Amino acid sequence: MSLNTFGHIFRVTTWGESHGPALGATVDGVPPNVEITPEMLQVWLDKRKPGQNKFTTQRREPDEVEILSGVFEGKTTGTPVQLMIRNTDQRSKDYGDIVEKFRPGHADITYWQKYGIRDYRGGGRSSARETAARVAAGGLARAALDKLVPGIEIKGYMTQMGPHGIDRARFDWDQIDQNPFWTPDAVAADEWATYLDGLRKSGESVGAVIEVVARGVPAGLGAPIYGKLDTDLAAAMMSINAVKAVEIGEGMNAACLTGSANADEIYMGPNGPEYSSNHAGGILGGISTGQDVVVRFAVKPTSSILTTRKTITKAGEPAEIITKGRHDPCVGIRAVPVGEAMMACVILDHLLLHRGHVGENQGKIG
Amino acid sequence: MSLNTFGHIFRVTTWGESHGPALGATVDGVPPNVEITPEMLQVWLDKRKPGQNKFTTQRREPDEVEILSGVFEGKTTGTPVQLMIRNTDQRSKDYGDIVEKFRPGHADITYWQKYGIRDYRGGGRSSARETAARVAAGGLARAALDKLVPGIEIKGYMTQMGPHGIDRARFDWDQIDQNPFWTPDAVAADEWATYLDGLRKSGESVGAVIEVVARGVPAGLGAPIYGKLDTDLAAAMMSINAVKAVEIGEGMNAACLTGSANADEIYMGPNGPEYSSNHAGGILGGISTGQDVVVRFAVKPTSSILTTRKTITKAGEPAEIITKGRHDPCVGIRAVPVGEAMMACVILDHLLLHRGHVGENQGKIG
Amino acid sequence: MSLNTFGHIFRVTTWGESHGPALGATVDGVPPNVEITPEMLQVWLDKRKPGQNKFTTQRREPDEVEILSGVFEGKTTGTPVQLMIRNTDQRSKDYGDIVEKFRPGHADITYWQKYGIRDYRGGGRSSARETAARVAAGGLARAALDKLVPGIEIKGYMTQMGPHGIDRARFDWDQIDQNPFWTPDAVAADEWATYLDGLRKSGESVGAVIEVVARGVPAGLGAPIYGKLDTDLAAAMMSINAVKAVEIGEGMNAACLTGSANADEIYMGPNGPEYSSNHAGGILGGISTGQDVVVRFAVKPTSSILTTRKTITKAGEPAEIITKGRHDPCVGIRAVPVGEAMMACVILDHLLLHRGHVGENQGKIG
Amino acid sequence: MSLNTFGHIFRVTTWGESHGPALGATVDGVPPNVEITPEMLQVWLDKRKPGQNKFTTQRREPDEVEILSGVFEGKTTGTPVQLMIRNTDQRSKDYGDIVEKFRPGHADITYWQKYGIRDYRGGGRSSARETAARVAAGGLARAALDKLVPGIEIKGYMTQMGPHGIDRARFDWDQIDQNPFWTPDAVAADEWATYLDGLRKSGESVGAVIEVVARGVPAGLGAPIYGKLDTDLAAAMMSINAVKAVEIGEGMNAACLTGSANADEIYMGPNGPEYSSNHAGGILGGISTGQDVVVRFAVKPTSSILTTRKTITKAGEPAEIITKGRHDPCVGIRAVPVGEAMMACVILDHLLLHRGHVGENQGKIG
Repeated sequence: MSLNTFGHIFRVTTWGESHGPALGATVDGVPPNVEITPEMLQVWLDKRKPGQNKFTTQRREPDEVEILSGVFEGKTTGTPVQLMIRNTDQRSKDYGDIVEKFRPGHADITYWQKYGIRDYRGGGRSSARETAARVAAGGLARAALDKLVPGIEIKGYMTQMGPHGIDRARFDWDQIDQNPFWTPDAVAADEWATYLDGLRKSGESVGAVIEVVARGVPAGLGAPIYGKLDTDLAAAMMSINAVKAVEIGEGMNAACLTGSANADEIYMGPNGPEYSSNHAGGILGGISTGQDVVVRFAVKPTSSILTTRKTITKAGEPAEIITKGRHDPCVGIRAVPVGEAMMACVILDHLLLHRGHVGENQGKIG
Repeated sequence: MSLNTFGHIFRVTTWGESHGPALGATVDGVPPNVEITPEMLQVWLDKRKPGQNKFTTQRREPDEVEILSGVFEGKTTGTPVQLMIRNTDQRSKDYGDIVEKFRPGHADITYWQKYGIRDYRGGGRSSARETAARVAAGGLARAALDKLVPGIEIKGYMTQMGPHGIDRARFDWDQIDQNPFWTPDAVAADEWATYLDGLRKSGESVGAVIEVVARGVPAGLGAPIYGKLDTDLAAAMMSINAVKAVEIGEGMNAACLTGSANADEIYMGPNGPEYSSNHAGGILGGISTGQDVVVRFAVKPTSSILTTRKTITKAGEPAEIITKGRHDPCVGIRAVPVGEAMMACVILDHLLLHRGHVGENQGKIG
Repeated sequence: MSLNTFGHIFRVTTWGESHGPALGATVDGVPPNVEITPEMLQVWLDKRKPGQNKFTTQRREPDEVEILSGVFEGKTTGTPVQLMIRNTDQRSKDYGDIVEKFRPGHADITYWQKYGIRDYRGGGRSSARETAARVAAGGLARAALDKLVPGIEIKGYMTQMGPHGIDRARFDWDQIDQNPFWTPDAVAADEWATYLDGLRKSGESVGAVIEVVARGVPAGLGAPIYGKLDTDLAAAMMSINAVKAVEIGEGMNAACLTGSANADEIYMGPNGPEYSSNHAGGILGGISTGQDVVVRFAVKPTSSILTTRKTITKAGEPAEIITKGRHDPCVGIRAVPVGEAMMACVILDHLLLHRGHVGENQGKIG
Repeated sequence: MSLNTFGHIFRVTTWGESHGPALGATVDGVPPNVEITPEMLQVWLDKRKPGQNKFTTQRREPDEVEILSGVFEGKTTGTPVQLMIRNTDQRSKDYGDIVEKFRPGHADITYWQKYGIRDYRGGGRSSARETAARVAAGGLARAALDKLVPGIEIKGYMTQMGPHGIDRARFDWDQIDQNPFWTPDAVAADEWATYLDGLRKSGESVGAVIEVVARGVPAGLGAPIYGKLDTDLAAAMMSINAVKAVEIGEGMNAACLTGSANADEIYMGPNGPEYSSNHAGGILGGISTGQDVVVRFAVKPTSSILTTRKTITKAGEPAEIITKGRHDPCVGIRAVPVGEAMMACVILDHLLLHRGHVGENQGKIG
């Protein structure tokens, strides 16, 4: 089983390779009567699109999404929605070096060991290009959420590049869309620009931390024990290429806290329960509290760099390799819209699950 | 859908509440002809059992596991294995305080908001007591792994208590089973004993970091894209009570590294490919490399402390609460065998998946 | 994967063997706040219970069901419900004959060929005793349906025994519970009693046809394309031991009809659309119409008979076998409550699916 | 959840509407290294293709399949295979009549009642055109089976048209591909040609029975209890448009037999166990015996006929409707390759399941 599907009710199956004719997402479980157009999806794809500035790969593709099914007269019908993106930049080139050699830090060697065959062109199925399909599906999830729970807002941004974190005191929501790093800290944005330009010129790359927040999520979403909201978010984010860690709320730092410092106190607000703080990241016992749902994930530096690295060939011979070509010095940048898309899909999925299973039984407070 | 099942082929469904008559795990997809006895499972349950020393809850229960199905003459038959543990310490007591008030940091409020009904006794379904069922299932997974891939070793240990981490230079595998914290650093064990005793006496609690390693995992396990080995491990660990973060290999620190520092170089060893380092945590592209699979997770401090906390009642009135009773000053300790169990289940699940899907197609190197 | 679970949202996993300590059903996805007691489930188990008259197996077991989880103060909590039935009639006896020989028409040989191990006692997992767990789960489904869609009625009855069918002109709902065959035709009941008594005395057995009807099912249930209501009912009924065919509405006879004879015409009734006939069995395009949902299934004669049959041993040697012991001359009788239980589970499952996915979008007519 | 996926390991998700831009199948879990070309799939699509003779719909489309992913240099890579078929015959026409009126016997009314929106063009998602995607996926399954278990043969044929069944004494495998009805009885083929021509001219339609046989299936496939081979086949066949009944082996007739007449006796053949007869249809206890797997299903007459029928409009007003256009007088004809495709998918799925779960544990006989 290749398990190319995620979600319980809102189920997204992605397909396609980096250099095949097309890739896409088959999305099942879409609620009916949601207004959707290709243009509404394109907004999010454009945010992820490569080649927008010098900090992202220079592969130039329009990443134009086609809706092939499940939509009639501008509305979803409740049947599967097929979202297809043609690969247009399939340059005919010599792949000789990576045909026989495994690139360190890439999935070349494990795909070979697993399947005994691999599409080596641009990483094939293991390429981050697969995330374009997720972003398209995420756009559909956002549209459905807008209809079902108006007011949900999902926003991702970069909080750390290499060892350089943002200053939370300078956090500014309006800044996020104003810089190439989707960071809320304008000062950090400037500093990172210089830092990353240096790395880029030296053929190096660096990791990053992305935070994604969902505001306006109603209390009660999440399906304990093995479909907890945080469990599904952890899986969703870890499934993104190059991600090595996922944190909810306080994250790794929770280990350092005492019980009295960590547990968010509860009080009654005008519209229901509120909390004195949000160490929990909006989730208790796997179920949303109504606070902001806060997820962070760490993206490793891309392994495609201009440094000579030691490796082996399929024949087991020692070799050296330099990964030439068009690459991202910080793939974390383009992971921002992907993280948002995964958040949107997971929240919608749990909303649909909750409606089906629990219905009108929710407990009232006050 | 409550989603109380995990796994794709080796499927574990846990059931039961903290203070109901029993809890257990219904385990489907167990390979046939695996030798198993209750005693083999009991070893792992005893490791998790409460009341073993002053650092864990004083609830005293034998946690004795019964095998009710799926085993015939000491061997699994390939049919579902029912593992049941009776709750014996169901003291008749006054639950008055937590019936009406929500404990901060606990799932009381969200279960109420989700379901409109909750078994408040000891946290009901959200109690960490549910993890006993996982440990039993994990024992079964270990037995199956022993038969199918002899030599796999799975070991968990604590690497941080509160802000105090171990010194990796003192790492000693043989030390792990020699101290109440399952830590490989004997010096840290002594320091933590003093530290935790102080916290315990003051009615406080603290978080921890657990690391789980699987050695001898063959290359090729993991089902991209949405059943990656790291994805499933992230979900498995995040589903454990009180876990707030999961790291694979370098984890959050991957964000700080450059591409040349992070990507593990490859060379040919006597039995196949080897790597100069293991920043990847034994997983590339979601597929095992044959190196140690390394997962870490952070456990928040238990929210059951002897400090007065602000909260509200079901009626929405402000209130104060102190959580009396038997609790763990550092629940991370008892999370060690749980993390091991989840690792065993995930590895076995992917082994079975791989056998079915890929069969004999794996690529050879050298 | 043994696949011992059915249902999408209301998920029933059965476990246990004929002669093990217990068997049961782990039921996940139960809506919260449904009133349930063991007594409410026992009603249905008693209907299936063996040894009630001379026409069913003389194995005598109380089949008493225990609720081990998921219910608090008489109501479901939305967490998994564990329903356990102890096996009390595990006579210590000599199984010698069936240890080495495969009984014709039984699963002995295929379980051996599949698993390389089998619990031969009473058929082990392949025994129809497993259906007791389904009946318990079905009772839970009925209770949930009663709460969510008051007025749904689910009724099964026998329409054919051996070659002898009922006369539909004598169909009388009130008769169904008045005879040991659950048949609506009192005349047939008398005739069958004589017929079956003859078969029983000669050590023979015979097949039967069971019809199950669900009344009051709202229009709109069913999830095309691969979770159609009829698809799921076909799977549910075919999964019952000894079932060899499933029909919806007109069934096999649909092949004989012309288009004008078959398609039910539509007119407007006082409460919505009605139909001139019900060849469709209440389902169009996999979705319920609001008419009676009508399913029929054929049960083969039990293969446990007092006639000498030719077979082979595990060693491949030719052999003869007579299946002694306590058996049903017409297992179809006890399949009636099982068919009802499966219908209840499928209808509830689709109701929950529909609520989650479609919500308030249904189209109105008139 | 729309549940547009079937299969456990070999998972087929179909998408697309009758008159949208395209339809297709997203196939996950395909074993790697299977040789496949579009031409190999086209063979089966051509068998189902409309407009081949006067007995099938005159809609003329090439139904050309494109492979968009998962295949590299002519072999599957183990990643999802996207099979797309463009809809080329989307005539711009007036759908006025069926926009407001519900066609009796069609899914028009239930799709409306369920979703509150429907793509009425040609039946939209409920059109039998969806089965083209199944046939493409079935071609892929056949190729994988050919590699994994050489010698499996899957063949479908018509055994009854309207009330006219074949004479089994005239059964001739070589005849099946020689007539437009895929029937093994040449005499019946001639008689049916006359019979159907008469129905066609009068604007009528008629039902049919299709039988599908799989030869060479190894013993041991099937996953009790709820993934029995017969259970999954029942679901697979019932999910085909217009199917109203499914039989395994003896089918409905099993109800008429006595135990001694029904149970197939076992003897030892040169290559393993053999049976004196095949009432079981090659399946015992849900697991294949090694005999021919035999499934039959009844297809109702298409409801698109040239007779005036009574119905209602969306507004609930009484109306009359005649379904003009291009239709099949006996849709059963084109259901033959669809039934074969479903058989191929189910057998492959269970082969992969069996390999993963049971591995080398099968019991030997003799």
